[in-house]
Amino acid sequence: MSRQLHLNLFIHGRGHHEAGWRHAGATRQALTDLDYFSALAQRAEQGRFDSVFLADALALGDGAAHVATGALEPITTLAALAQTTRHIGLIATASTTYTEPFNLARQFASLDHITRGRAGWNIVTSWVRGAGPNFGHAHQIEHAERYARAHEFLDVVTGLWDSWADDAIVDDAAGGRFLDPARIRPVAHQGRFHSVAGPLNLPRPPQGWPVLVQAGSSPSGRQFAARHAEAVFTAHLDKASAAAFYAELKGAAAALGRAPAQIVILPGLSAAIGATEAQARALLEELNALTDVSVGLERLSNRFGGHDFSHLDLDQPLSVDDFPDPATVQAAQSRAAVITGLVRRERPTLRQLLHELAGARGHFTFAGTPEQVADVIADWFATGAADGFNLMPPVLPAQLDAFVEHVVPLLQRRGLFRTEYTATTLRGHYGLARPANRFFAARDAA
Amino acid sequence: MSRQLHLNLFIHGRGHHEAGWRHAGATRQALTDLDYFSALAQRAEQGRFDSVFLADALALGDGAAHVATGALEPITTLAALAQTTRHIGLIATASTTYTEPFNLARQFASLDHITRGRAGWNIVTSWVRGAGPNFGHAHQIEHAERYARAHEFLDVVTGLWDSWADDAIVDDAAGGRFLDPARIRPVAHQGRFHSVAGPLNLPRPPQGWPVLVQAGSSPSGRQFAARHAEAVFTAHLDKASAAAFYAELKGAAAALGRAPAQIVILPGLSAAIGATEAQARALLEELNALTDVSVGLERLSNRFGGHDFSHLDLDQPLSVDDFPDPATVQAAQSRAAVITGLVRRERPTLRQLLHELAGARGHFTFAGTPEQVADVIADWFATGAADGFNLMPPVLPAQLDAFVEHVVPLLQRRGLFRTEYTATTLRGHYGLARPANRFFAARDAA
Repeated sequence: MSRQLHLNLFIHGRGHHEAGWRHAGATRQALTDLDYFSALAQRAEQGRFDSVFLADALALGDGAAHVATGALEPITTLAALAQTTRHIGLIATASTTYTEPFNLARQFASLDHITRGRAGWNIVTSWVRGAGPNFGHAHQIEHAERYARAHEFLDVVTGLWDSWADDAIVDDAAGGRFLDPARIRPVAHQGRFHSVAGPLNLPRPPQGWPVLVQAGSSPSGRQFAARHAEAVFTAHLDKASAAAFYAELKGAAAALGRAPAQIVILPGLSAAIGATEAQARALLEELNALTDVSVGLERLSNRFGGHDFSHLDLDQPLSVDDFPDPATVQAAQSRAAVITGLVRRERPTLRQLLHELAGARGHFTFAGTPEQVADVIADWFATGAADGFNLMPPVLPAQLDAFVEHVVPLLQRRGLFRTEYTATTLRGHYGLARPANRFFAARDAA
Repeated sequence: MSRQLHLNLFIHGRGHHEAGWRHAGATRQALTDLDYFSALAQRAEQGRFDSVFLADALALGDGAAHVATGALEPITTLAALAQTTRHIGLIATASTTYTEPFNLARQFASLDHITRGRAGWNIVTSWVRGAGPNFGHAHQIEHAERYARAHEFLDVVTGLWDSWADDAIVDDAAGGRFLDPARIRPVAHQGRFHSVAGPLNLPRPPQGWPVLVQAGSSPSGRQFAARHAEAVFTAHLDKASAAAFYAELKGAAAALGRAPAQIVILPGLSAAIGATEAQARALLEELNALTDVSVGLERLSNRFGGHDFSHLDLDQPLSVDDFPDPATVQAAQSRAAVITGLVRRERPTLRQLLHELAGARGHFTFAGTPEQVADVIADWFATGAADGFNLMPPVLPAQLDAFVEHVVPLLQRRGLFRTEYTATTLRGHYGLARPANRFFAARDAA
């Protein structure tokens, strides 16, 4: 079979465009209504998507008064979606900075059992400034330390998943033996940030480990991804940037001895789909006209660690000198670099930049017909910029519906995308190997 | 309407009897199979139970090789059960000692939204010895400090739930206003154990707060319950002990200005049900014969902080001098006191004690016909020992099925128990008031 495209639905508010919630194509359901999330996941499943994904932030977001915010927590939401979907992978975001590794290992193991092997963990270090003060810290923990914690945290969590051999449960009712204690062991981790005895208190997940997903693209984030990530969500404003990232990350993974196919790279794509190109463009313009400058300025400021842009003229071309150096930013460094790269190349006005970012917060946005969207997807996929896409519809559910109804059949007709599910687990959908257990070799079938 | 009985199903392994998993009436499904939990919750819902409840421990349990252990994590399980049940309340255990209050407040708020107001939180301080070392502590945190933490933790969590007024979401798409920032506020908690800025990042739960449940019966546990608990699970080996506890706790709550009906007291009841009394007794004897002395000794030892009982003769009467003083025990002090009380009263042999505890770990066990079980329930309910029961079937699902089929109709015929659900929330089932918001008065309807 030829190489197959992967598609993930990124569920965010009532759509990824900052003003999507105000549009007639957006749901009127509350963001605390599980039925809304179920309907989206079911729609993506009808479209044979590999997975759905919920992002997360551990503090109330930017510009909260003017954007649709306050959604359900991801882990509980995905456990519920396990019961309302049958095939699609379910990826929840959780932080390595502000949770206990034992609790997180356990909840994701439980999710993987509940979903029968459809769970993924989007590993984040929590860049939003408000997170630290919700967890006993006077300030946000700095970027480098967050990544140092993340490496150790992942080592503990994967060790806990491996603390039970796959065959640890004997379940011999007649003989009175439920477990084989020789097939369970402590992890006895004593590190810089964590000490965890183990073992975990539930069996190894069906997938061995839930799929490890990562979305940080700073130098530290890329190192982390090259070493650990099995699927990567990444933000690029054009194909050249995506292709460079793709080549670099696959190369870095290969240099660490990993098979390049075992790291699936999924750039964000926010597609505004219309019956004609003019209609698609009109949709984006309509959404941009609904944005609030104060929200855009607050979000831009937060992307640059609180830097103030409000004194700049909205309609004068920007220069990189208007921005702090991204390498000094303690938030999401890679996204800051994407923004200054755009400013250097295109010299937009501040208003134009805010509209560009309103579409999908620094991800690639595109307006066109279903054929044009399918062309972009096929092109990036064929020419080394993507293994698939993290679909970020600007308005939910209308623009997801348009994609499933009109773009997916084109991709299927071109032989790029599955017409039926052929696997039962998220690893199966993404073509990922089941990880060996670091502590226990599989027993030979006698 | 006359005072109504409340029933909670306590789901534990394949039944509460230590050897229940070995019995022919026990499921063969894995404890990681959500369908098993769903079927039990649905059966309890057919029986019009108020709620189901999952206990928890943050370390692999005692005697794990010989008991059915390694079940799904409670919060993820209940989120999934929200989709497979419609009416019944769903109570998950979570620890105030080894979780972050922001994360826990958020997951329970999310659960309450997902269940549309059917969530409860069983607040525990985590007595098992293995928990501390899974969370960065060299040893278990001591009993008194665990309760000091619990009080502060609860204050933070309820504050986070109250950090959004019930009407904080405006959702004015035309006007571009999603939230009213004046109806959301930080909690700014700076305490001995926690500092949490807030606000929470999702709206106030439908019930205001999920129902607060508590099960610790030590002096510290009773103080905590009198002040905070809205439902109490409690272990007694006889009615006199239950009645004394009931009177004391209702009195202590009243002394704090609380209405006694706003604290629902549910003693544990492990009923072995048979068509005849002889059959019921034979079932218990069959189960006791399937126990493993080493498991019973390890569990007894853990109940007394690691004290060794293995040198004692199994068939000689015990004395209280064989036990450490319960007040010095750093585990679950009240359960230790229940056990030494039994020894003082009845002078059982060690083997008899282990069988007694094998039934339901110190809760009341009873073997009889459906009529006899209904009589016990009606008697305790009528004479000030219980507002209802925490049902702990010795074998699951068989003994739950027997209770729903044969005992529930008797209770309904006597006018003690609902025949249909009349409320839609767990607060409604238990007759509990919705808590006022400490920060925001409800607005008058204009």
